[in-house]
Amino acid sequence: MKNNIVVLSGGVGGARFLEGLIQIALQENIVVIGNTGDDEEFYGLHVSPDLDIVLYTLAGVVNATQGWGFADETYHTMEQLTKLGNDGWFQLGDKDLATHIQRTNLLKQGKTLSEVTKELCKQFGLDIKLIPMTDQKVRTKIKTPKSLLSFQEYFVKNRTQDEVLDIMYEGIEKAKPAPEVLETLLNARAILLAPSNPLVSIGTILAIPGIRNALKKTKAKITAVSPIIQGATVKGPANRMMKSMGMEPSALGVAKAYQDFLDVMIIDEQDKELQKIIEKLGMKVITTDTIMKDKKTKVALAKTTLDSVL
Amino acid sequence: MKNNIVVLSGGVGGARFLEGLIQIALQENIVVIGNTGDDEEFYGLHVSPDLDIVLYTLAGVVNATQGWGFADETYHTMEQLTKLGNDGWFQLGDKDLATHIQRTNLLKQGKTLSEVTKELCKQFGLDIKLIPMTDQKVRTKIKTPKSLLSFQEYFVKNRTQDEVLDIMYEGIEKAKPAPEVLETLLNARAILLAPSNPLVSIGTILAIPGIRNALKKTKAKITAVSPIIQGATVKGPANRMMKSMGMEPSALGVAKAYQDFLDVMIIDEQDKELQKIIEKLGMKVITTDTIMKDKKTKVALAKTTLDSVL
Repeated sequence: MKNNIVVLSGGVGGARFLEGLIQIALQENIVVIGNTGDDEEFYGLHVSPDLDIVLYTLAGVVNATQGWGFADETYHTMEQLTKLGNDGWFQLGDKDLATHIQRTNLLKQGKTLSEVTKELCKQFGLDIKLIPMTDQKVRTKIKTPKSLLSFQEYFVKNRTQDEVLDIMYEGIEKAKPAPEVLETLLNARAILLAPSNPLVSIGTILAIPGIRNALKKTKAKITAVSPIIQGATVKGPANRMMKSMGMEPSALGVAKAYQDFLDVMIIDEQDKELQKIIEKLGMKVITTDTIMKDKKTKVALAKTTLDSVL
Repeated sequence: MKNNIVVLSGGVGGARFLEGLIQIALQENIVVIGNTGDDEEFYGLHVSPDLDIVLYTLAGVVNATQGWGFADETYHTMEQLTKLGNDGWFQLGDKDLATHIQRTNLLKQGKTLSEVTKELCKQFGLDIKLIPMTDQKVRTKIKTPKSLLSFQEYFVKNRTQDEVLDIMYEGIEKAKPAPEVLETLLNARAILLAPSNPLVSIGTILAIPGIRNALKKTKAKITAVSPIIQGATVKGPANRMMKSMGMEPSALGVAKAYQDFLDVMIIDEQDKELQKIIEKLGMKVITTDTIMKDKKTKVALAKTTLDSVL
């Protein structure tokens, strides 16, 4: 347990960061705590987008261009489901559907989401330990001027076009960290926060009662990679969401969100001017190239991040 | 209700018979009571093979060569489910899966199988009324020298190779006919038994408490088409099963199975020598071409059958 490198991760950014990390650390020493606030049921099937992105990316079957789903995917079941009168805004590929059918079936048999995820890791040939943040149902809801949307409605259906008035984590009060999560954090060798959305990916994980406290208590050093560069994101609506929520949409805003437990902040070299300001929050700051455009940059970023807390 | 032509049907033989019938009678006047003893859960999905064969055949999307499943089908989800460690002996196509996902989801929402089937009929653009024999779980089990198999294990997995020692309908005592079934039989204009397996298709329907009695009580005339020609079947193991169960594997054996309620028996012209023997059971016998090799022969058989009881 003491040798574990723990990574808190959302979807695409987290998975790409992990692609680099598994090149410089043994998979069996890596524990990923994944966000499940984006989970949703489609046609009665339990879909866990962030967990699947990690699975598919590390198993090497992901559609690398879009960052999610399978490469060489078809949509024959989906087309037929649409003909049968179903909404088709969340496109589930044929290979992808196998994961959701499998997960739903195992859950139906009484297994917990973390047990199911462990099985899926094995079935995808992975040695990392991927643990959902909780086995309870937590759903990220986005309050917009017109309605309260599920995360996927906001993100996929409405393509992040709505103004965000508030972000809520439905079910969070009753949620407990999944088994091993707190223990793993307290006994970790190092804890890394992937360059994922600080509100709806890392933020959701941090909102699970007990997790933030474990990060404050752990003796392991904690480092975070900013997903925001020059006030913008490589992928996703993090900067706009942060602005809506009254946060500074920058690496500084990210650092402030984590300042109660963070030791090291990794920011992009383009944000060099923020270094001194962030250091004043009481943390070390490292500037480097954080744009993971190829394998080499992914590995370099993982190495810089890991080295910063070892 | 008085104008209904009611058909008791199994899978392929029944569906092909119905293809002819909808050419000579209005779909909205046809009520099909379908066998659900062959239903099974695969990967947590509720599959109703006989109901689906009827749906796909009448909707014109069936793979006409094999008699079940969709034409132009792919198996991408199935291949992936197999990679994830699942058995793959029951091949579910990608388009076909949409039906099972839809059915399972609607059942999960609390709808009955007959309500779900009604919705599926509409979604497939059909005007016939297709009613499962029961909304309760009845499962046909095949006792073989080695074990007790589900119908699909016997039929698909083991390709009907096992010796049949007994046939059981698990759950039959607690099963009730689906809503409208008894009423429809009692008030029918004519009742037709499709050329389906007398043991595991029609036999299962007849075993639902109340159905056989309704057939004895109804004022409608009842006719049956023999699925056995010259002691053999066009499709399926009916003749071997009948022999195993101590029945004569011929049109005579079929007639005997229905003799307590049957008015007319339709047998193939190749079985002409059985006509007089079957008539002695106290029913009318018509000989005709019962091999449904094309649209013309399907329509002719449907017409002969329907005319025999109008």
